[in-house]
Amino acid sequence: MDDDPAPRAVALLSGGLDSYTAAAIARAEGFSVYALTVRYGQVHACELAAARRVAAALRVKRHLELDVDLAGFGGSALVGDGAVELDQAPDRVGIPATYVPARNTVLLSLALAWAEALGAQDLYLGVNAVDYSGYPDCRPEYLNAFEQLAKLATKAGVEGARLRVHAPLIRDSKAAIIIRGMDLGCDYGLTHSCYAPVRHDQPCGRCDSCQLRARGFAEAGFVDPLLAMSG
Amino acid sequence: MDDDPAPRAVALLSGGLDSYTAAAIARAEGFSVYALTVRYGQVHACELAAARRVAAALRVKRHLELDVDLAGFGGSALVGDGAVELDQAPDRVGIPATYVPARNTVLLSLALAWAEALGAQDLYLGVNAVDYSGYPDCRPEYLNAFEQLAKLATKAGVEGARLRVHAPLIRDSKAAIIIRGMDLGCDYGLTHSCYAPVRHDQPCGRCDSCQLRARGFAEAGFVDPLLAMSG
Repeated sequence: MDDDPAPRAVALLSGGLDSYTAAAIARAEGFSVYALTVRYGQVHACELAAARRVAAALRVKRHLELDVDLAGFGGSALVGDGAVELDQAPDRVGIPATYVPARNTVLLSLALAWAEALGAQDLYLGVNAVDYSGYPDCRPEYLNAFEQLAKLATKAGVEGARLRVHAPLIRDSKAAIIIRGMDLGCDYGLTHSCYAPVRHDQPCGRCDSCQLRARGFAEAGFVDPLLAMSG
Repeated sequence: MDDDPAPRAVALLSGGLDSYTAAAIARAEGFSVYALTVRYGQVHACELAAARRVAAALRVKRHLELDVDLAGFGGSALVGDGAVELDQAPDRVGIPATYVPARNTVLLSLALAWAEALGAQDLYLGVNAVDYSGYPDCRPEYLNAFEQLAKLATKAGVEGARLRVHAPLIRDSKAAIIIRGMDLGCDYGLTHSCYAPVRHDQPCGRCDSCQLRARGFAEAGFVDPLLAMSG
């Protein structure tokens, strides 16, 4: 048992800009941060390298990387297919290619499990309802429902702990997130946002995620340190 | 895409008696069953062998085994510790040794993810509130909360799908579960219940789980086929 008197929080860390900022807010709000990166079969391993850089920069108490092979489920362009197929994959219609089925429920449930083991009552995540309005599990009502579930799901909740799901960026624009993070000393040159990096971790500049990031930095009035480095 | 006209259900399968019975009920209720076994770092690998035997006996459409290393979180005697510790493990007080933090939330969220990818609206699990009254995530109010969450968490739910969490055994005694399963043709000689098997998959006969099972068979008026085989 360490003797850090600060309350503990579990922060989901993807290696992207939003989760970095959310974890920095957790730290600024006085928490001892335990960072959780879930490797759910992402196509881009450079996200993991970014998550490690971010965790180190945040000086988190611990950074845990957890493998969950969601690729076995099928149903998304964001997860590679490494599973043994015993049956034909079902077809999917009308779902955005980057949507991962029930992703935030899986991520939050894992964060909750670790929080309970750590005696932590606070979860932080960088979800945003502005840029991801099409994703059901990025809405405030979803997060409220998870908070209600967490109270019923755990010994701590049943015993009266006030489990809280913090999504401090949920209503912010990308520019507002960047301004908030820069103010907290975030070095966004450590992050990775691109869905289709050209080689190594160099952003393509064309995918949705790259364009969203570029607009955010432009509106915030900053130069993206990632482009400054690679350019 | 297969041409099975039956609706699909995802059933959580552990290799134990309860989840086998719940999956058999799903099949009896007309579902095409997709069985999910989550390997969350259990000490006893023979549970997995049992899950495979049960899946084969049930002739499930597909049996998916998914690794999630909950052992990295610490906090339970039921999961081995295979994680790299970057910090001291926190101490735990007042939690039963066999309680796995937020376990059912993790299992249900994974089942939900697969269900969404499959276009399934029904989840089956063998939780029981009689034998596991000390576990917060085995109570009906918890399962209701998860059902509410599932509606908000997924595209399917938002689009009006009636996602349902079926826990058909939740109020049954072990004897009642056994009688129900025998009636459905379950071969309980395929299952594994023991927390501390002597060697291979031979039950110890002394642990809580063995004693619960023995009392169940006695009250149901059946001989446990597992004991008949090994004895």
